[in-house]
Amino acid sequence: MERLRAARRLLHYSSSKSLFGPRSNPTSAEHPLRRSASGVWYWCPYIADQKGRFGGTFWGPTVGTGLGKTIRIQNRRFGSLAATIQRNPSFSTLNSDDISYFKGVLGEKNVIQDEDWLLSANTDWMRKYNGSSKLLLQPRSTEEVSRVLKYCNSRSLAVVPQGGNTGLVGGSVPVFDEVIINMGSMNNIVSFDEVSGILVCEAGCILENLISFLDNQGFIMPLDLGAKGSCQIGGNVSTNAGGLRLVRYGSLHGNVLGIEVVLANGDVLDMLGTLRKDNTGYDLKHLFIGSEGSLGIITKVSILTPPKLSSVNLAFLACKDYSSCLKLLLEAKRRLGEVLSAFEFLDNQSLDLVLNHLEGVRNPLPPSMHNFYVLIETTGSDESYDKEKLEAFLLRSMEGGLISDGVLAQDINQASSFWRIREGVPEALMKAGAIYKYDLSLPVEKMYNLVEEMRIRLGDSSKVIGYGHLGDGNLHLNISTPQYDDMSVNCRF
Amino acid sequence: MERLRAARRLLHYSSSKSLFGPRSNPTSAEHPLRRSASGVWYWCPYIADQKGRFGGTFWGPTVGTGLGKTIRIQNRRFGSLAATIQRNPSFSTLNSDDISYFKGVLGEKNVIQDEDWLLSANTDWMRKYNGSSKLLLQPRSTEEVSRVLKYCNSRSLAVVPQGGNTGLVGGSVPVFDEVIINMGSMNNIVSFDEVSGILVCEAGCILENLISFLDNQGFIMPLDLGAKGSCQIGGNVSTNAGGLRLVRYGSLHGNVLGIEVVLANGDVLDMLGTLRKDNTGYDLKHLFIGSEGSLGIITKVSILTPPKLSSVNLAFLACKDYSSCLKLLLEAKRRLGEVLSAFEFLDNQSLDLVLNHLEGVRNPLPPSMHNFYVLIETTGSDESYDKEKLEAFLLRSMEGGLISDGVLAQDINQASSFWRIREGVPEALMKAGAIYKYDLSLPVEKMYNLVEEMRIRLGDSSKVIGYGHLGDGNLHLNISTPQYDDMSVNCRF
Repeated sequence: MERLRAARRLLHYSSSKSLFGPRSNPTSAEHPLRRSASGVWYWCPYIADQKGRFGGTFWGPTVGTGLGKTIRIQNRRFGSLAATIQRNPSFSTLNSDDISYFKGVLGEKNVIQDEDWLLSANTDWMRKYNGSSKLLLQPRSTEEVSRVLKYCNSRSLAVVPQGGNTGLVGGSVPVFDEVIINMGSMNNIVSFDEVSGILVCEAGCILENLISFLDNQGFIMPLDLGAKGSCQIGGNVSTNAGGLRLVRYGSLHGNVLGIEVVLANGDVLDMLGTLRKDNTGYDLKHLFIGSEGSLGIITKVSILTPPKLSSVNLAFLACKDYSSCLKLLLEAKRRLGEVLSAFEFLDNQSLDLVLNHLEGVRNPLPPSMHNFYVLIETTGSDESYDKEKLEAFLLRSMEGGLISDGVLAQDINQASSFWRIREGVPEALMKAGAIYKYDLSLPVEKMYNLVEEMRIRLGDSSKVIGYGHLGDGNLHLNISTPQYDDMSVNCRF
Repeated sequence: MERLRAARRLLHYSSSKSLFGPRSNPTSAEHPLRRSASGVWYWCPYIADQKGRFGGTFWGPTVGTGLGKTIRIQNRRFGSLAATIQRNPSFSTLNSDDISYFKGVLGEKNVIQDEDWLLSANTDWMRKYNGSSKLLLQPRSTEEVSRVLKYCNSRSLAVVPQGGNTGLVGGSVPVFDEVIINMGSMNNIVSFDEVSGILVCEAGCILENLISFLDNQGFIMPLDLGAKGSCQIGGNVSTNAGGLRLVRYGSLHGNVLGIEVVLANGDVLDMLGTLRKDNTGYDLKHLFIGSEGSLGIITKVSILTPPKLSSVNLAFLACKDYSSCLKLLLEAKRRLGEVLSAFEFLDNQSLDLVLNHLEGVRNPLPPSMHNFYVLIETTGSDESYDKEKLEAFLLRSMEGGLISDGVLAQDINQASSFWRIREGVPEALMKAGAIYKYDLSLPVEKMYNLVEEMRIRLGDSSKVIGYGHLGDGNLHLNISTPQYDDMSVNCRF
């Protein structure tokens, strides 16, 4: 345990503590879809091998077929190519009657035409995608959303729903002049049942506010991500956000018990169940989870929240190679079992980027070359036991050679500084220049091959970095270049 | 702790141990749907108040509507009323050409016309629903299922998919002369990844066999139910079975990563993903989870399995009233947190029924009148700690008056005998006479009101018993009468 500068004092911090200010971090869910103005969805780079295999030979816009062998590889589209997409002329353009109608429904102050406001709402968090909407609407109720959509449908006005606008692939901003329907004013908590832990709230509730509300009730959200200070639960559900707690609490398909949705024609689908089990009829709500607003706008969400557990421990560890990270993951699942609440990784290049571009961030380990870093968080109900358990696990892992070095956070500040490294990677990437971002699910044992393969293919022209949710097989692959240049990244494929 | 005859020796048993022989227990998932021969699904008694309220005034086949106020109450249909449903004459009847075709596709021995075999396959586990199918087919591959369905579709032959035939509402047996497609021959494990814990298998795999297979790999199924010795994973997924582990591992919507399905026209939908996260496109697989074969036949399943934890503890407790059960549940969620793996309850009448009708079952508590009994199971990775934790919790709960009496299982045999009480209720009910079975999801705090209300309404004409998954708000309401008599249960409504 000597090399593991383990704290003598148990780390004990509230999971609802905001580590970052509002709007300082993007959502971890890097959306695969972007909507074209024609209403047809096209694919941002997202490579998923349905059978769980990955290899260089699968590259390219090829779809293999055959029973049990379907490989889904989507075409690549970059923001810089968006100019090649034409606005569908069958959509109307706004006129003064439209504005008058919306003011009648929503009230003057919820019909936004202010240029500065619109500039912000037209631009994504990465400042990579820009729309040219002339109107932002702020409905305050399901009925208002319904009336707005019914009207837009009848007038053939294109719309784009917008939550916290923290997505990284431009899914929440217009492509052309779509009417932006911002859900931020629907931010009420409808009900909370402390026996069942079931929360019902409006779609515009900011994730961090829900986390704070639940904290006071002795519960937590089953979802946590870097963008929590700005992202909204409706957007989280629409994008099926995964985030940092998926390894412990599973996906939103398991935790969301019900939703209320307004369809494009204004019809309201009330699927706002508050039952842990509900097998009555087809479970249509799942179609809306992860469909990014393309089937309707989520207006309310019912979600199962777990009780808050009092003891949280966090370790920042170094591993010599990817294989050690994998073995550590397997051991953590088996030995930390019920208390494991996060297993995140970043490569050496990711850490360098954070250390070079973010102020006040330092490496918690002594300067030494390690190829990979892993954050392991445990959450349990017994302070002394949980800490002992993690320490024993780390000791065993060091003796077994799976960990090269490591440190256990000794207080909430240290824990925050560890999380700052992992959650700061997107911000550091933004400061470093242009970024080509990929969010991939791959079989965990082969996941990092992709990063290495990309380094070989791209050579010195770009920095290729890999980090993400190792516990979920979810890699954030990022290619950092001084400026956007489609040729530079396409030439070797 | 004195009254809690706690064991000195830690209970430590394998979760894969079968407590009962094959086909000895029904599935815990009491299906809400029955298929009519016309292909239209009708509802068995299943009352779900979408808003989480329940009250006597909602009884009857009424559907209230209005935003946020929809109440779904389904019509009641009993097996004894099935005679009033007419076979849809647009469906064909089998001829010798059909038989020849099936023999050509499946081979002679997989085309079953044997009367004894068919008698068993035409009858549900409860012996309450009887079909009159003249043919049972046993496909061995997805391709065979596809060819069979394509043919039946072209010939307008009605079909019913059948797994382990352990359901309690007749969903797995024909209503008239449908061709039975039994999935039992598709029982191969396709793959298992020990890093991710992802199992891919054919739909006909018996749950208990999967549990045994995983046990050898150091993993468990996230699903367990009394019928495990016979029920098949395809049927579990098709009925969205909940079972005993839902409180810990959540529903199949969260755990099933992918499925392969054959549609009625023979088309194969390959949605057999093996990724923990997959946000590519609409997640159609959820439509098939719980839709009881009405949209297609599930042929393969990919499921996320948790690592096996070595320490299991089980307590059998008595509570004086339902309110104490609820408070105990809340406390258990908060204080046992990450190790809580089951929270089941049964009322005094359920226990009496088991003690009177099942041989070799005895009350583990000294004879004394208690109104409710609760089973609490914990599963963790540390034997001594987990036991101490449960003991401390039980001591605290006794001191606080939530528990009136209780016993902690001291070995696997005692644990099995405790589970035998809970899992034996359906069998005891069968031996007691006719049963009207209801499987309800209700807000947990009002769930038992229904049992009490039913006792008032039915008076002495029937025994009304309530038991089930308290941790999930899932009540098994059963009305036991000497014989079926629609008037006797309908007269007071």
